[in-house]
Amino acid sequence: MLAVTSQGPELISVEDVPKPGLEVNTDAIVRITTSALCGTDMHVYHHKIPNVPAGWIVGHEFCGVVEDIGDAVTGFKPGDRVVSSMYVACGRCPACVAGDHRRCKDFQMFGMGAAFGNLPGGQAEYVRVPLADMTLRAIPQDLSDESTIFTGDILATAFTALRQSGIVEGDTIAIVGAGPVGELLAMCAPIFGAGQVYVIDIVPERLESVKKFGATTIDPREQDPRKLIKEQTGGLMCDAVFEAAGNEPAMKTAFSLPRPNGAVVLVGMLVNEHFPLTAGDLWLRNTKVIPVLGAPYSHRDELLKLIAAGKIDAAQIITDRIPLSGAAEAYAAFDRKELQKAIFEVGS
Amino acid sequence: MLAVTSQGPELISVEDVPKPGLEVNTDAIVRITTSALCGTDMHVYHHKIPNVPAGWIVGHEFCGVVEDIGDAVTGFKPGDRVVSSMYVACGRCPACVAGDHRRCKDFQMFGMGAAFGNLPGGQAEYVRVPLADMTLRAIPQDLSDESTIFTGDILATAFTALRQSGIVEGDTIAIVGAGPVGELLAMCAPIFGAGQVYVIDIVPERLESVKKFGATTIDPREQDPRKLIKEQTGGLMCDAVFEAAGNEPAMKTAFSLPRPNGAVVLVGMLVNEHFPLTAGDLWLRNTKVIPVLGAPYSHRDELLKLIAAGKIDAAQIITDRIPLSGAAEAYAAFDRKELQKAIFEVGS
Amino acid sequence: MLAVTSQGPELISVEDVPKPGLEVNTDAIVRITTSALCGTDMHVYHHKIPNVPAGWIVGHEFCGVVEDIGDAVTGFKPGDRVVSSMYVACGRCPACVAGDHRRCKDFQMFGMGAAFGNLPGGQAEYVRVPLADMTLRAIPQDLSDESTIFTGDILATAFTALRQSGIVEGDTIAIVGAGPVGELLAMCAPIFGAGQVYVIDIVPERLESVKKFGATTIDPREQDPRKLIKEQTGGLMCDAVFEAAGNEPAMKTAFSLPRPNGAVVLVGMLVNEHFPLTAGDLWLRNTKVIPVLGAPYSHRDELLKLIAAGKIDAAQIITDRIPLSGAAEAYAAFDRKELQKAIFEVGS
Amino acid sequence: MLAVTSQGPELISVEDVPKPGLEVNTDAIVRITTSALCGTDMHVYHHKIPNVPAGWIVGHEFCGVVEDIGDAVTGFKPGDRVVSSMYVACGRCPACVAGDHRRCKDFQMFGMGAAFGNLPGGQAEYVRVPLADMTLRAIPQDLSDESTIFTGDILATAFTALRQSGIVEGDTIAIVGAGPVGELLAMCAPIFGAGQVYVIDIVPERLESVKKFGATTIDPREQDPRKLIKEQTGGLMCDAVFEAAGNEPAMKTAFSLPRPNGAVVLVGMLVNEHFPLTAGDLWLRNTKVIPVLGAPYSHRDELLKLIAAGKIDAAQIITDRIPLSGAAEAYAAFDRKELQKAIFEVGS
Repeated sequence: MLAVTSQGPELISVEDVPKPGLEVNTDAIVRITTSALCGTDMHVYHHKIPNVPAGWIVGHEFCGVVEDIGDAVTGFKPGDRVVSSMYVACGRCPACVAGDHRRCKDFQMFGMGAAFGNLPGGQAEYVRVPLADMTLRAIPQDLSDESTIFTGDILATAFTALRQSGIVEGDTIAIVGAGPVGELLAMCAPIFGAGQVYVIDIVPERLESVKKFGATTIDPREQDPRKLIKEQTGGLMCDAVFEAAGNEPAMKTAFSLPRPNGAVVLVGMLVNEHFPLTAGDLWLRNTKVIPVLGAPYSHRDELLKLIAAGKIDAAQIITDRIPLSGAAEAYAAFDRKELQKAIFEVGS
Repeated sequence: MLAVTSQGPELISVEDVPKPGLEVNTDAIVRITTSALCGTDMHVYHHKIPNVPAGWIVGHEFCGVVEDIGDAVTGFKPGDRVVSSMYVACGRCPACVAGDHRRCKDFQMFGMGAAFGNLPGGQAEYVRVPLADMTLRAIPQDLSDESTIFTGDILATAFTALRQSGIVEGDTIAIVGAGPVGELLAMCAPIFGAGQVYVIDIVPERLESVKKFGATTIDPREQDPRKLIKEQTGGLMCDAVFEAAGNEPAMKTAFSLPRPNGAVVLVGMLVNEHFPLTAGDLWLRNTKVIPVLGAPYSHRDELLKLIAAGKIDAAQIITDRIPLSGAAEAYAAFDRKELQKAIFEVGS
Repeated sequence: MLAVTSQGPELISVEDVPKPGLEVNTDAIVRITTSALCGTDMHVYHHKIPNVPAGWIVGHEFCGVVEDIGDAVTGFKPGDRVVSSMYVACGRCPACVAGDHRRCKDFQMFGMGAAFGNLPGGQAEYVRVPLADMTLRAIPQDLSDESTIFTGDILATAFTALRQSGIVEGDTIAIVGAGPVGELLAMCAPIFGAGQVYVIDIVPERLESVKKFGATTIDPREQDPRKLIKEQTGGLMCDAVFEAAGNEPAMKTAFSLPRPNGAVVLVGMLVNEHFPLTAGDLWLRNTKVIPVLGAPYSHRDELLKLIAAGKIDAAQIITDRIPLSGAAEAYAAFDRKELQKAIFEVGS
Repeated sequence: MLAVTSQGPELISVEDVPKPGLEVNTDAIVRITTSALCGTDMHVYHHKIPNVPAGWIVGHEFCGVVEDIGDAVTGFKPGDRVVSSMYVACGRCPACVAGDHRRCKDFQMFGMGAAFGNLPGGQAEYVRVPLADMTLRAIPQDLSDESTIFTGDILATAFTALRQSGIVEGDTIAIVGAGPVGELLAMCAPIFGAGQVYVIDIVPERLESVKKFGATTIDPREQDPRKLIKEQTGGLMCDAVFEAAGNEPAMKTAFSLPRPNGAVVLVGMLVNEHFPLTAGDLWLRNTKVIPVLGAPYSHRDELLKLIAAGKIDAAQIITDRIPLSGAAEAYAAFDRKELQKAIFEVGS
């Protein structure tokens, strides 16, 4: 089968590799129909993650059709259309029962190498899915791959961030960074009852794109976000601010916007970035800091109900549709920030 | 000044009465511009509430302009446009600090007679408002009386019901009864993230009206609500059901719709109605029962932000606009259920 | 092996039956060391539950030692001391992930007959435990069977009730009925921060027993609970009341004690009992009703940490220790209310 | 009357000053019986707070007896024993109604100079208390000043920190710093259901003192806190860590102890301290940061119920009882860390 593989830092190639088979009775084999290219994949691309062997299959957001199931799989049968979680956890240990699946002792993530449980990824024609009854969810009838694929990762991340932010209906929020996650935050903010929603970015197309969700947009090169929000809120500022860019300038903006006793939610992938303020300042301003890692197991069932009810359509964020054979070029273009959110149309 | 007064059971007349003045330094006098006719007023109309003297001024939902203020009022000045809460509480005792204003030892409700603190109502040209800094809120610039008036009572009631129901984003709900409160529940459900929203009523116009909020409507004379919802939810049923009609048939329907471990929220005014099931059945079905009294003090600030942000426009539920002089006829028509939600345009 | 079996209504006998073996690779076989006699077993005893065949093995609270495991069991090995949940659910479907394990499509309960998944019970020398990694938990070193056995059922029920009641630190509560669950409510109330705790019962020994947990006791034949609590709380009454007796007089007392906007939590097993008040009264008093079914999967990990930290010792409620051979007599005595909380010491 | 006054940096003297009188009709005059010396007073002592004029009366934790009341005070009468909140807020604006009293536009704090509303403090024989019905609470009969005085500040701070930490019953916590606030955290942890409680400090007497609350103590010069907690929790680490020392070494320890998706609560007063880790590290470790400012208005009613019920006795933290005349010496000794928690016995 064809698969997108990492052959070394910045070396992506589409290779013909052996098709996976069932290993244990809780596995399923899924024939992939749609796979997405995610910011996290860039960590594998640049080999910032340890232990990515040559030939490693990348990718962790995907939909497809069940091809084969182990004896113990009861929730699916061959032919079922499914969307996968980006990770696998047992569902039964204390951490999982408490809803903290990333602390499962058997935690694995698709396509991230040996450091994440050695589970080949989903930018391929087929993938082996462990604990299929837990990891997969049926795509509701009449819904497309494109509408549901992001429940396995970035839509769940945006949803988790909004849930963990502690906002209540009527609250004012700001989103710093209108990339895919920022855009999904703006899309989901109304279902969390956000009143005024500000989105801050320097790319005009991105700002334009979030206006359809009712957001007020700010280009910080044209207007000072703090000053504008202060004016428009009568000095009340934001109840919660979402840092969805993952860099120090964005963090600096983010920490300037919450009200006393408000929150900054860190959704963007951060690596070595420093805080733009001291712990003393944070305490005096009384600003909570809430780092968020997406929790698809906890939230995709809610998301699928919202999608089925027509309240969210995450397909709107897709900007590029690419055949699997174009993966090497897509990775390079994504790294140059020429793509916003691309999917691979597999087997089409 | 003109005022709508109760002269006895089913006897409403508009009378010329003395204009109220300031009594203590925390009072304000408000010149009323808009006043609403509420289901609760029917209890006064029928003298179901004890101690309503002849000549009593009715009404508890109103907007207006500040005419005069006591020395201790700091939040308002003459000329400010304001909307009032239906009740008055001190904000400072343990019950108030805990957000439970109805348990304030100084609790008063406008227009409900001696049993509710002897506070004349707001269907009049002027009204004295105690604890003005607490009881009034400024109408945000550019917003109309009609958009904001219900933050003082029934919009807050719908909001309180949704908040107390414990629903989370994606949940399926049903609303039994599409009167004014039912309609506001349907309007607000999306800002609480409701996925599928069912509204059940037997009046075709009411069902038609809630469709604009994305609700699925059911006329129980045409379709069995339980059967339909069971089919459409794949047997999962409703996470929460709102009984907004206040009668036994509606309660019977309501209790047939929640999932195990779901909730029935009692929003409709109940008096002598019995439960349609035993405590044993309730326990076996594991259904929570949540009676709701509206809490405008707790929720109108959130609501005003949502209204200002364009997320809610409660003016949509107004069906009739009547001069104050037409009050007697309006009460009679409302009692015959010929009006749905009427307002008095005062002084116009 | 020996097992306690139901041979018909009110017919319990200890029989020699075949020892169970592994059926699927997620099973474990547990050699039971301690098993408890629970109020729920009385429903089987009286055949109030449908489809209990002759020879059915009863019991759902038990501890033991792992004897054998299926290939897919990773959390336990033979020789491990374990305590079981009273029920089995998959941990992976939407209901389970949402923490609502009783709605799992594969829900089973030990010892309750065909209507509850046909899973033989734990009043026996051995038991087959499905989904062992989910259903069992290790008994922490140095802890006894007696301290931990109730995490699988009634201790979790008391904990669930306190959690679902919504009480906050400082709240005043009342517990109506000081049987095993009532006693555990009184034991756990301090870890939920309850301020004043009232316990109401007519059995002097039961009242005496809860005093060690700091409860104020009331015998309703000597003092009127409502009057006494009204006096002692300055009229504030109870934030939450727990009905833990399961009968109409207890419910009548329970519904007389909450404050406006307070809660009555129904913990006792109810069957045909009616409400002691109308829906209208409930609405006017603004009393929430919260029926509770225990949720051991959701709470035993928390409970085991509390037990290991010395904050709870549920062994204190055990009143009788009986060999398995004495089961028939024990059931009869329990039915006559001569036993409060008995355990079977199996294989000793 | 006698009053403790600041005459300049590190210059405290007890002076004879005019007795305060009522200014508006919501004021009360309180004859002080007990006043406490708090870490926050050190900011005034060192003039780290701007705008502290010479002769300024210090102090914000105090109890006393009502001497006189304004016409609008309804909750108290002369002779009532009362405890005060450290701050004053209106209770009626949107911020106050939302429970965020520090954002009240009329916020004042006793004894902190012009920057905090110019309200003379409570280390004096008499004090004027604005908004007496909100700011004061009655001391329940049979309770002492010493048991209740800290509900106005540091006991409320510890309580707020535990509430905001989000811990649930059974959780493992660590407290870094066993000064007065750390000690109160250890005292209150059981009423929030904490399972294992670790307290870390280098002063043996402090560690000894918290053992009575069931805490496990760690002197970091003898044992590595992270290593020890890792061993004892089987690698699970702490659900929440409370930094109650307010310095960088304590913060470094604190940030080494939470589990992934755990929290560090900043309770200690921080000024210029830096974070001991980058934002990138914080995100990768998924650690929430929750700065806490005490909220006595929100929590003292709950605390007074807990004290009355015998669940907390904060008098246990008092180490020194000093006459008001000894204030200058007490400030200097406290600054040299020779006092832990001192109170002034006023008028005795």
